[in-house]
Amino acid sequence: MKLEPEPVRGFRDLFGEDAELLSLVMKKAEKLAERWSFERSFLPTVERFELFAMKSGVEIERTMYVFLDKAGRKVSLRPEATASAVRAYLRLLRGRPKPLKIFTIVNVFRYDEPQYARYREFYQADFEVFGASDPFEDAELVTMLHEYYEELDLPHVIVIGSVRALRSVLEEEGVVGKEQDLVLHYVDKGLVDKALEVVASKARNPERAGEVIAKLAQWEGGEEVIEDGKRLMKEMGYSYSFEDVEEVLAYLPEDVKAVLKVKLGFARGLAYYTGLIYEVKVPGFPVSVAGGGRYDTLTEVYGWERVPATGFAIGLDRTALALKERGRAYKESPLVIVLPIAPEARKEALAVQRELASLDVRSLLLTEKKSVKKAFSYASESGARVAVVLGRKEVEKGFVSVKNLVTGEQRECRREELLDCVANALKRPLEE
Amino acid sequence: MKLEPEPVRGFRDLFGEDAELLSLVMKKAEKLAERWSFERSFLPTVERFELFAMKSGVEIERTMYVFLDKAGRKVSLRPEATASAVRAYLRLLRGRPKPLKIFTIVNVFRYDEPQYARYREFYQADFEVFGASDPFEDAELVTMLHEYYEELDLPHVIVIGSVRALRSVLEEEGVVGKEQDLVLHYVDKGLVDKALEVVASKARNPERAGEVIAKLAQWEGGEEVIEDGKRLMKEMGYSYSFEDVEEVLAYLPEDVKAVLKVKLGFARGLAYYTGLIYEVKVPGFPVSVAGGGRYDTLTEVYGWERVPATGFAIGLDRTALALKERGRAYKESPLVIVLPIAPEARKEALAVQRELASLDVRSLLLTEKKSVKKAFSYASESGARVAVVLGRKEVEKGFVSVKNLVTGEQRECRREELLDCVANALKRPLEE
Repeated sequence: MKLEPEPVRGFRDLFGEDAELLSLVMKKAEKLAERWSFERSFLPTVERFELFAMKSGVEIERTMYVFLDKAGRKVSLRPEATASAVRAYLRLLRGRPKPLKIFTIVNVFRYDEPQYARYREFYQADFEVFGASDPFEDAELVTMLHEYYEELDLPHVIVIGSVRALRSVLEEEGVVGKEQDLVLHYVDKGLVDKALEVVASKARNPERAGEVIAKLAQWEGGEEVIEDGKRLMKEMGYSYSFEDVEEVLAYLPEDVKAVLKVKLGFARGLAYYTGLIYEVKVPGFPVSVAGGGRYDTLTEVYGWERVPATGFAIGLDRTALALKERGRAYKESPLVIVLPIAPEARKEALAVQRELASLDVRSLLLTEKKSVKKAFSYASESGARVAVVLGRKEVEKGFVSVKNLVTGEQRECRREELLDCVANALKRPLEE
Repeated sequence: MKLEPEPVRGFRDLFGEDAELLSLVMKKAEKLAERWSFERSFLPTVERFELFAMKSGVEIERTMYVFLDKAGRKVSLRPEATASAVRAYLRLLRGRPKPLKIFTIVNVFRYDEPQYARYREFYQADFEVFGASDPFEDAELVTMLHEYYEELDLPHVIVIGSVRALRSVLEEEGVVGKEQDLVLHYVDKGLVDKALEVVASKARNPERAGEVIAKLAQWEGGEEVIEDGKRLMKEMGYSYSFEDVEEVLAYLPEDVKAVLKVKLGFARGLAYYTGLIYEVKVPGFPVSVAGGGRYDTLTEVYGWERVPATGFAIGLDRTALALKERGRAYKESPLVIVLPIAPEARKEALAVQRELASLDVRSLLLTEKKSVKKAFSYASESGARVAVVLGRKEVEKGFVSVKNLVTGEQRECRREELLDCVANALKRPLEE
């Protein structure tokens, strides 16, 4: 029997530039967390199904990996990290000083139809703040997202709004519960006509509500669009006036405001958002690369006390893909390759490799016996810029040959001068 | 209904020092891979069950998470990374220059009884080399493991041997297939008597075989013990003479040899090892923290051409736990805390936070409204060493107050001199 080497549908084997790019965006997310003092956490990949069902409804089972474990527990592979973070908060962190800022990098799973930028396993960097009622925290989070994409030098727009705009109008019109969620779902999917049908059949004042919701769902622009929204709400006699969005904007630095697009009737997939929501879009890239918002009542959904909370997730695969689309392929080649071209030179070659590695020089050791020609062909395929060549003669004399693989220049150096000689061949200091 | 906040049995919520330590050992493993030029990869968490069953036998199902996905595929959560690496090699990497060195950091899953240092989800750093027939590669890998634990400053012993010792004796005695595996399994578990029972009933020359296997299973020591082993094999008329172990040792640097313990009749759990095997033990820690070996025939088990290969996995949770046991708790506190103590100071406080973060200073921004007293109590609980305090007056005057939270010293600085002032309060340069 011959193994079929394809992975399971929707899963991926990443190597080379794809893996390096994903690793790069992952490390940058870690750095972001460290600098802004978000505490690291590791959370389970497998959780009880009810953790997700209580939060998002049992329909979520359709798009999740759900199975019975050997003890008969109905468990799921996590489709996102927030639910686990909230559970762990309730279990372990309620006594900690607030606001409490945590982060985690996770692989998450969705049983969706695989398509461009949508996989069945993907990676997220998840940032959550518990015990944070203040819009100033949302301003911090939006600023962090901006800094993250600035550092990656990835052009981006942050679409921002509040679920309270649509929800408060619907509330005042008596459209509540599942029907309210359905209107937001349609608006989120761009199906405004379908949203308006629900409004037409359920609202106390269908005409007025329909007009406002149609406008909210359509209107977007710079900060100034909020004034239009406030005027509209006031004229039509609704009480909400974008105060939550305005307060966050009041704290945001000018360079963050410059990338904002305010969307008055903004709705995002997840039903548990209670206020400000936002998404990061990269121009020309079909799906959002990050998103978040405020969820002040999720702990209550879980039957616990109210804990105001807010957070975002960075889609690491999508961010990596958006970078790749902009031609930002990225490959970490070794800088130096160490070539023992005689068996007697191997022990010394390993010592040379260790010396280079100890200085954090990316260095590759040739470990198979190869002819000199094949050794140099391996060297050039590796992408290394300099080769340290050790033959029997060199080792006996206490020398190494150092060759610049780009120019072809080669010189002999005393073994004690290895690092300077390599640095010289690289034409830059080694420990910069 | 109130959510039960415990994770599923055997799974963990890690925060604080436990999470920091795990992250530390993970980052050091990444660094090791980068310096030694192992190529990064990401491999699927979910694989077809047959990938593991072909390699390890269907009995492995007992200790694995196996389930049917929505399309009726029998899939598993990976119990280790090597099988996926081999599959991906066969799919994508056969044309690459050899030896090909890759690595990945993965979460893996085993349905074992949870106990100390054994969890149902845990983390591994996996290093594999394909197209590597030469023992020099094994010498590189063992040296890397030593460097890794040296850098963590964790005392360690590397137990080393070859499965060929026991297997070649059993082969020559006609003990093959499942029975041969069973003998190795018993020796691995320390059940030498049970191993000898199998030998007694199956070997062509039970007495001779029993005597040699009993000695091999017992004898261990420094490099010199190999001479004893060679003498024994020769005297008893077996053909194996530890040549594979000797060749690796010939390449190893002295400091690596100093931590070796050669175990003549060494056997490790996994049935697919074909030659050199090794494990890293930390004195006083009950389980091995890393292990690896040579598996030259695994691709043949999968019905493909032979690809000599060798590799190791670092048990990241166990390594973190071994560090913790030695009192090496490790907590990344913020260095600086930014305290806006008036609403008018918040925007400036966010600017200060950004400035510090941009220099990689771990800095924490207070985002909730608190009294001055509560703000300072939050500051001291955060572990920060310096507070930057901004009130209305400070902002109006273009000043900040910088307070050393250890000594209580406080001084006012001009906003433009923030960084120097903080550096001074920290009594060390900021961008070191």
